[in-house]
Amino acid sequence: MSAPIDFYFDFSSPYGYFGSCRIDDVGARHGRDVIWRPYLMGVAMKITGATPLVTRNMIGEYAAVDIPRTARRYGIAYNEPPPPFPIATIATCRAFYWLADRDPHQARDFARRVYAALFIDGRNIGEPDVVVDIATVAGADPDAARAALEDQAVKDRLRQETDTAVERGVFGSPYFIVDGEPFWGNDRIEQLERWLGSGGW
Amino acid sequence: MSAPIDFYFDFSSPYGYFGSCRIDDVGARHGRDVIWRPYLMGVAMKITGATPLVTRNMIGEYAAVDIPRTARRYGIAYNEPPPPFPIATIATCRAFYWLADRDPHQARDFARRVYAALFIDGRNIGEPDVVVDIATVAGADPDAARAALEDQAVKDRLRQETDTAVERGVFGSPYFIVDGEPFWGNDRIEQLERWLGSGGW
Repeated sequence: MSAPIDFYFDFSSPYGYFGSCRIDDVGARHGRDVIWRPYLMGVAMKITGATPLVTRNMIGEYAAVDIPRTARRYGIAYNEPPPPFPIATIATCRAFYWLADRDPHQARDFARRVYAALFIDGRNIGEPDVVVDIATVAGADPDAARAALEDQAVKDRLRQETDTAVERGVFGSPYFIVDGEPFWGNDRIEQLERWLGSGGW
Repeated sequence: MSAPIDFYFDFSSPYGYFGSCRIDDVGARHGRDVIWRPYLMGVAMKITGATPLVTRNMIGEYAAVDIPRTARRYGIAYNEPPPPFPIATIATCRAFYWLADRDPHQARDFARRVYAALFIDGRNIGEPDVVVDIATVAGADPDAARAALEDQAVKDRLRQETDTAVERGVFGSPYFIVDGEPFWGNDRIEQLERWLGSGGW
């Protein structure tokens, strides 16, 4: 099998959620594994100077139209999350990597459930209790999951993943890298898929 | 014929250029006129707090990949413009509206030539001499074109267009409004076209 698609995303990102609903099918159609890599986009945003889309003048109002419209375009269930938004996702990311190092499939299931919890059910996925609850539904032991959130090795794992993402030039969500080629945004999945189909252009 | 598509763009925007190469065909396929509306995006950027894409940390490096790749995706001729970039386009916009009030087709021809001058030939389309030259090639009288750049009525026309754009929530390039629905970006033309084809979703 050819090199995998690296799929970077932030758990509080609506477009990252949309990307998560689409990228596995793209990979499957082109014989590529997809490696899910949640990271703390806020670290990259300190470098780019970006601020959360929904908090910006004018752009936030546009996003309030574009996000649900894009969800409908792709047939993805979506409800605007209640405040607080965006959400600090450190605990969520830590739980993901703790799971990923034991069972990548369980980690991906957890990630899907996190996105659904936030963007369908409106739960605050930044809360450790919610994170543990979702990890438990995904099959993890609740006490072990709770302990993992404060485990230094898990903290270091997330820091390393985020540092590596930034070193690779990742700053958005979703952000894909395949064969060294970067594609930023749910709206670049079409180009990514053409790229895979044609070997570039 | 149904209501037209308002096509807002900045003359120094690569994605605005790409949009200009695509939107007329979209309008034609759906029986919609397209009204070209260049504006001073910098005025909106003061409100949104945005800075030019190519000048941002990390994002600028990504844009240097994405812009030519997107051009190739759509078969659009493109060469990265030499400095200075972005360019102040006040004179260019004034010439456009001066032409538009006399002959909209000539104004659109002028706009296409401006984009080609910048993004194919690498000319500094912010220079009044270049603007007058392009207007002349598009069929205008050179002395009248030069005078128009300092005509108070023309200045007011551009200010009014830009103010109206901002009042309508326009902040990007390209930015389309049709039937009250906003679409931001070359990468939303696909959704815009689906919208026209289906009457929304």
